[in-house]
Amino acid sequence: MVKPITMSQKVHNFSAGPGILPDEVIQQAAQAVLNFNSTGLSLLEISHRSKEYVAVMDEARDIVKRLLGLGDDYDVIYLGGGASLQFAMVAYNLLTVDNYAAYTNTGVWAKKAIKEAKMMGKVTVVASSEDKNYNFIPKDYTVPNDADYFHCTSNNTIYGTQMKAFPKSAVPLVCDMSSDIFSRVLDFTQFDLIYAGAQKNMGPAGATMVAVKKSILGKSGRIIPSMLDYNIHIEGESMYNTPPVFPVYCVMLTLQWVEKMGGIAAMEKRNNAKAELLYNEIDRNSLFVGTTAKEDRSYMNLCFVMKDESKEEAFSQALKVANISGLKGHRSVGGFRASIYNALPIESVQVLVDVMKQFEQTHA
Amino acid sequence: MVKPITMSQKVHNFSAGPGILPDEVIQQAAQAVLNFNSTGLSLLEISHRSKEYVAVMDEARDIVKRLLGLGDDYDVIYLGGGASLQFAMVAYNLLTVDNYAAYTNTGVWAKKAIKEAKMMGKVTVVASSEDKNYNFIPKDYTVPNDADYFHCTSNNTIYGTQMKAFPKSAVPLVCDMSSDIFSRVLDFTQFDLIYAGAQKNMGPAGATMVAVKKSILGKSGRIIPSMLDYNIHIEGESMYNTPPVFPVYCVMLTLQWVEKMGGIAAMEKRNNAKAELLYNEIDRNSLFVGTTAKEDRSYMNLCFVMKDESKEEAFSQALKVANISGLKGHRSVGGFRASIYNALPIESVQVLVDVMKQFEQTHA
Repeated sequence: MVKPITMSQKVHNFSAGPGILPDEVIQQAAQAVLNFNSTGLSLLEISHRSKEYVAVMDEARDIVKRLLGLGDDYDVIYLGGGASLQFAMVAYNLLTVDNYAAYTNTGVWAKKAIKEAKMMGKVTVVASSEDKNYNFIPKDYTVPNDADYFHCTSNNTIYGTQMKAFPKSAVPLVCDMSSDIFSRVLDFTQFDLIYAGAQKNMGPAGATMVAVKKSILGKSGRIIPSMLDYNIHIEGESMYNTPPVFPVYCVMLTLQWVEKMGGIAAMEKRNNAKAELLYNEIDRNSLFVGTTAKEDRSYMNLCFVMKDESKEEAFSQALKVANISGLKGHRSVGGFRASIYNALPIESVQVLVDVMKQFEQTHA
Repeated sequence: MVKPITMSQKVHNFSAGPGILPDEVIQQAAQAVLNFNSTGLSLLEISHRSKEYVAVMDEARDIVKRLLGLGDDYDVIYLGGGASLQFAMVAYNLLTVDNYAAYTNTGVWAKKAIKEAKMMGKVTVVASSEDKNYNFIPKDYTVPNDADYFHCTSNNTIYGTQMKAFPKSAVPLVCDMSSDIFSRVLDFTQFDLIYAGAQKNMGPAGATMVAVKKSILGKSGRIIPSMLDYNIHIEGESMYNTPPVFPVYCVMLTLQWVEKMGGIAAMEKRNNAKAELLYNEIDRNSLFVGTTAKEDRSYMNLCFVMKDESKEEAFSQALKVANISGLKGHRSVGGFRASIYNALPIESVQVLVDVMKQFEQTHA
């Protein structure tokens, strides 16, 4: 009754998010929907308090710490509501009434994070690339020593820029890693709070991961609604209320796949090879041009436009013929965006590069 | 590779939530995980802005209005975070700084809703059954005419009580229907705001449905974080940010199943037959006794204990042999709780009743 995908249907999925997941994760997830761990029940209809599911949640929390190299001073929780809810939660939990927070404004999501924090209190934007349509990462700033915290966005999905290094910070360093977590080797212990919506490198939509040093919590002096209070979710071992059961299960499967493939170092190697293959073609091909400063290019979301915009429709048609999906650029940048998340095979990038080469031959 | 459940594994699922879903919904959900609508992509890895998924969200919103008989003065949205997040959102959106809200305290979830509202402002509890361990529904109260709103819980999952009628209210009537929505015929237009976590009668965990009369919004005078602002989600057509894609899809499938089966009237008929079959046995059987006032008995969560507590372990063993799952009562009531949500077939209740009869013969 349940039919697999035939090879003729195989799509090269460059979607910016929700994005591509490993084939084996999809197979395992479908199996769990039908019969979870041979319980005779679907994962969709079992209690989150069952011992089988508690084991899933425990593993989903532990594996984040294993992969990121975080110690016992960090707690990991999964929440609903998306990374957008974290914009408010970060401020609720960390921003005091009489002090301020420091932010960088490097894209639409950073700007939204700033907007939500401003609803709660004072915010200083220490650096911005907004006036250049966010096409670079500002580096010429220092993190103030007296802020409650410093917030940055590691990768800007829409604009295709990525922070290659992070500033020294004497105050808690908070990072939205929604679109590049688990994609590259970093010293993750430099961050005090990392959050990421699952739907790019971690799993399907519906769960957001937060890894936080518990020592920075409990100091905002605010009355925090229980569901927005990190401490309450930590005390509840990420089960203060019913968690997003199936999305968290898929995150666990995806991170187990990362671990099996060799961890973040192996992902970085894969992603570097994919990104270099495509950026080399963007730079070589006479029809295309990248949209961002070269030193800030994202190795997750690669944005490029056509020098002659009138050829975009024909190129889009060529992509379609090659079964390439999700390459349309965000409306605020235009052109094309190739999101090459962990699960995307290099073969898909090669197909895209081949289409670009072929298109140059016929349309240059 | 993906294997279906064999008949010998078939479990009678009385879980209180996440709870049982229709077999055909589980089959369709598994199919969508493998290949969604023949797109060649998993539902877990497609953009929520794709036309295929926008159609899912539109249908998931529309079908709520069709089934509940709500007109264009209502909007339907799906949010993450669970019904627990609604406890804070209701207060954020409806409770003014200088007035108060009226609540009934009929169970643990009602009490939590009160706690969250009290963090925001003034609350008056107009009726409570807490001193009787919530074993009845208070009826001897009137809803104040000058409150910002009146909040009640239609069904108390833990204690097995259910409101059979709702008070007249001159102020907005807000109802947490998490555990009995779509289970019985009501005049749903008497409510101004209905919310329900999906994981009982609507689908898997990870999505919460809110149906709200837009005319009651925008009056609290508060600065509301965007993700907690109903108006923002309504304006975004429930896609202000990435929604819980797969859980909402499963909700759509489950509600389409309800519609196909004959709508809420058909569900009520099924549920009445199941509840009466089991309550009749609880009342007849010399070993068992119901825990709530008879006139307030829930037709979704049926709570009962053994007159001789020392027989509980043997009875639990008999349940296990019969492949009956999820019947353990909540720790605050003890004994047993049979959750007989829409998707539970009457055959499962009959199996349970047969076990109870058999147990009486051998253990009375």
